[in-house]
Order: sequence, then structure tokens, then C-alpha cells
Amino acid sequence: MSEIITLAHGGGGKMQNDLIRNEIATRFNNNILASLPDGAVTPENLVISSDSFVITPRFFPGGNIGKLAVAGTVNDILMAGGVPKYLTCSLIIEEGLEITELRKILDSMQAEALKANVLIVTGDTKVVPRGSGDGIYINTAGVGFKREGMELDRKRFTAGDKIIVSGNIGEHGLCVMANRYDLDCGALESDCQVLKNGVETVWSIAKNKLKFMRDATRGGVLGIISEIFENTPFNGVVEEAKLPVGKEVAAIAKLLGIDPGFAACEGCFVTVVADDAAEACIKALQTLPKHENAAVIGTVCEGNGSVELQGEWGALRKLIVPSGDQLPRIC
Amino acid sequence: MSEIITLAHGGGGKMQNDLIRNEIATRFNNNILASLPDGAVTPENLVISSDSFVITPRFFPGGNIGKLAVAGTVNDILMAGGVPKYLTCSLIIEEGLEITELRKILDSMQAEALKANVLIVTGDTKVVPRGSGDGIYINTAGVGFKREGMELDRKRFTAGDKIIVSGNIGEHGLCVMANRYDLDCGALESDCQVLKNGVETVWSIAKNKLKFMRDATRGGVLGIISEIFENTPFNGVVEEAKLPVGKEVAAIAKLLGIDPGFAACEGCFVTVVADDAAEACIKALQTLPKHENAAVIGTVCEGNGSVELQGEWGALRKLIVPSGDQLPRIC
Repeated sequence: MSEIITLAHGGGGKMQNDLIRNEIATRFNNNILASLPDGAVTPENLVISSDSFVITPRFFPGGNIGKLAVAGTVNDILMAGGVPKYLTCSLIIEEGLEITELRKILDSMQAEALKANVLIVTGDTKVVPRGSGDGIYINTAGVGFKREGMELDRKRFTAGDKIIVSGNIGEHGLCVMANRYDLDCGALESDCQVLKNGVETVWSIAKNKLKFMRDATRGGVLGIISEIFENTPFNGVVEEAKLPVGKEVAAIAKLLGIDPGFAACEGCFVTVVADDAAEACIKALQTLPKHENAAVIGTVCEGNGSVELQGEWGALRKLIVPSGDQLPRIC
Repeated sequence: MSEIITLAHGGGGKMQNDLIRNEIATRFNNNILASLPDGAVTPENLVISSDSFVITPRFFPGGNIGKLAVAGTVNDILMAGGVPKYLTCSLIIEEGLEITELRKILDSMQAEALKANVLIVTGDTKVVPRGSGDGIYINTAGVGFKREGMELDRKRFTAGDKIIVSGNIGEHGLCVMANRYDLDCGALESDCQVLKNGVETVWSIAKNKLKFMRDATRGGVLGIISEIFENTPFNGVVEEAKLPVGKEVAAIAKLLGIDPGFAACEGCFVTVVADDAAEACIKALQTLPKHENAAVIGTVCEGNGSVELQGEWGALRKLIVPSGDQLPRIC
């Protein structure tokens, strides 16, 4: 590992995973920390999660840093099998931020909290001098209660299980990227949203046939799938042509040379369900707004913890996850 | 209110209180948010708190930003009547931070977590480009469980109750300030510590005669006492000569012209207990390390929500709380 922190350590790739594993998780080592990537589940059946948001630009089509800070942490609780209930809101504001802008951000947070049926119950406000921040950074931590009977565990995978993606991919990452470089992104908006309805729909249909969930944030759908299969005795076989890519995302991805499979989503999740529940799940998801293009994109096969992409000729190639970051400060 | 955020909005004075009340609390309005200043108590008897830490310098005599981030949030849970159990750790790291420094900070966090008997169970790591941060900012959120029978409520105040401070005041603020300006501060260290032993000692002795607690962080002991009495039908009458001020703090305070009563503490709390429990509480506190100078410093009197300082002639003068900030980025 290099001796200083670089942007790649925050980019959702291998360098970040190594930093977290080798430097952080080893130090704070405990059984709960190890349990699930997005949130911790305690013996009291609390689900706890925390995320800091440093996105630039702070306002983007489809949302802003405040909406993202609420949706992101709520989604982490959902992905860890919890019903989100309480949020904290801690602000690090750079001197000079316009108070009218702060108000818009706070209003978005409250609006999103109402959609998610969570209460923002405590927080903290710090101000740093000009040049020591970038407008505003927001941390939200969330507390929820574990859904009874929902067992999210990769140990429950069996060959033949299906990999589902809940909607169009890469919309957040490519929207933010296009905005940052002043590209016209047409009707493209970030998919930033609370995933409550999507998760509850899948859960109500699949019940104990639901085996795992992850929202496809940093690293994108393919990065997340790669993490899901790591250290399992299975491979994820993904049919690349089935990844739902909207036409705006396709256009911008081509322009920038970015693989939308690795572009961040903020309103899309990957789930693994038993084969015989998969079709019913995607049919139900497709009735929900922003989930119209939910699709079965792959299958769990016996293997060695890799992801294989199946191209149009049926040939398989092993997926290599980027080691650094595709786009810093995406969330 | 001015139209942009200034450092004073983060300084623990009136401007910060107004920002939080008028812009934040009104938007997130709910019954739990209103309950206690340091942490939220939920109907399920969870105690939730969150703090971001932006202190500069990151290393100071007696601690560093990591130790502070754990002790600070643990103390908030304690002050809200909870037994702290779980912490989150979210890092915003500026590109270029030395990894050896990150390791020291993380080691301090874990060491302090062990002292507080809490587990760090989840977190998040973001990296921002050079110039968009200042080394490292840390957010910790904490979850604890309410102590059965502990009712911290200013409504329980009665005239004659005593105001106790748990030890020497102003040590964190003046130590950090001295270090920032390269002043020799002799043996002075920040008082940064987990207040678990102090709180449990007071609780075991006073039981339901314990009426309120606050740790004297931003705003210092006098700032905090002022907040405690606000909107109550009482005044806090504080005998200034009884405030325990160490000799190093006194020397630096004189040199810099700073009132140590408004200087931040990170290992000192103010508590209000019934008159007949006060002496036993301070005697027990005085047996604990860093609490040797615990003292009864004042009395609850009928009044109008003010704090009055009693000087050596017995005359009372009303305490005016600074509106801005004495020292930015103290925590």
C-alpha cells in the first residue's frame, strides 16, 4: 500500500477495499463489524449504518447532497435487512456557504426522510474555515430494526439462484459526471431514491427465498456483484446484454468511455433470490416507478468467488474489478 | 441572521444555537429531536447521538482527533442517560494524509472504544482532493440503551438543587489553543476522556436525585450552564470562585485573555443533583482520576432562565453568553 492516502482509496475499487480491510476492520475487529457490508446487525436486532457524503456538485439533476445523504443511509439499513427508523444529521459546513442553499439541502433531507418514514432525531453542526472544506459535507447515521425472518447471508446461495437488478444502471454516476463536465445529459437524472418500496416488494414475494441484497453505489452494479461473490464457493455469471442501460446513460458512457456497469447507482439494488422466485420478483418490481426495467441479469454457479461475464457468443470472461476509482466524490 | 455561514455559526455560542433552532430543528421537527441536547432518546429506549470532529491540530497533548471522536460521542450518549454500546466511524480523508498518521488515529479510536466498552460496528471512508479538506474529519454516531430509572429532565429542578462540575475546567480548549499558537503549555493536557466512570459514580450515589447532566464541550462550563437554565423557571447561581481552574489553565487564560469558564472541556461534565446528594457525589467523584477537583459550584434558585455569577462580594451579575465563537475547530 502506498504511504499516503490517494483519491483511489475512496473510489470504491480494490484500493479502498484493501484500506478498509487491512487498516480499519483489523483494528476495530469484532463479530458485528464483520457481518454485512452496508450495515451492522447487533444481537439486539438493531441495524446500524453510517455514511458521509462529499459529492460534487452538491446539486445535480434528480437530487442534491441532502437527498442523497438521507436516501443513501436509509438504503444501507434496508440492504442490511432492517426497517429504517431513525437518522442523525451531522453537517460540516465550509465558511461562506449561502444559508439559502443550506435551507434547500435541509428541506430535501426532510422530504426524503418523510418518504422513507424515518425521523431525523439528532445531529451536529461544525463550521470549517474557507479552504478547509468544499461547501458542505453531510454525515447521516441510521438505526433500524431487523425484519423478522429476513436472513441475508451469502451462505444460503445455491447453484441456480438468480441475480436481479432492480432497474436501470449507472444513472447516478453518469449524471453527476456529465454535470461536472458541463455535458448536456438530456433527460438523464440521478436515480437517487429511497429503495423502501423495491425492497418491500421483493421481500413480500420472495420471503425466505430472498438471500442477499446490496445497493449498487460506489463500484456500480458489476463492482457490487464482484464483492458479493468474493470468498464464496460460487461464481456470479452475468449476461452482459441483460444489464438494463438507459439510452442517455449509453450515450454518455460512450462519449466518456466509461463502462456503465461500474458507474454508481443511488436508486438501484442487486438481489440474489431462489430461481423459482425470480420471475415473480421482477414482474412486481417492474410495476414500481424507477424499477420498470428490473431484470434477471445472471445466475449463481459453482465456482471460486469470481464474476464471469457472458457475452453474445456465450463465451465467459472473468470480470476484473478496477483497482482505483472511476470518479471521485460521487456520493 | 447573516446570509452566509460564518465560523461563528460553529462556535457553540448564540449564533450556532440560533442556526440549529431556526434552520435545522424546525425542519426536522419531531418529538424525539426536541428531547435532550446531546442525544435522542427513542420510545424503544435507544439513545442515539452523532458528532463530527474537525479539530486542528489533529494531535494535541492528551489526545488526537480519533480519541476525541470516540470519547465525544460516548460522552453524549452518557449525558443523555444511556449506556453506550455501538459506534460508527466515518472518515473524510484529504488526499495526501500519511497512512502512518491514519493508523495512529485509528489505534486511538479502538483504545478509547475499549475503555468505554463500546464496539465500532460499521463506518464509511471518503477521500476528498487536496484542498477540499484538512487532513481528516471523523464522524462517529453512537447507539446506547437508556439506563432504567434515570430521568434527566430539567422539569425536575427545584430551588436548592446543587450544580456540580466534575473536575478542572477549560483544559481542552486552552490546551488546543496554546498548541495552535505554539505557546508552551507546560504540563497541561486536554482533559479528553470517556466520562463513564464519573457518570456511573454520580448515578450510583444520587440515583433519582440526579436530575440533569451535560458535558461542557463547546461553550465551556458557563456556556453549558447557561443552556441548561434557558427556558426554565429557575436561575443557576454560580459562585465564580468555586470553579476549579488548574494553574496551567489559569496562566494561559491570563496570557490570552480567555475566560476559562467559556473554554471547551472534553472530559468534564456539569450535573444538577438534589441538595442532600451533592456532597456525597463530589466526595465520590474526587476519588476518580481527573475528577479530583470535582466541586459544587452553584445552586438552583427560582428565576427566569438566567445564570447569575456570584463574585467575592456576594453581589450577583447576570451572565452574558458570547454570541460568536471563542475558538473555532476545537472539536
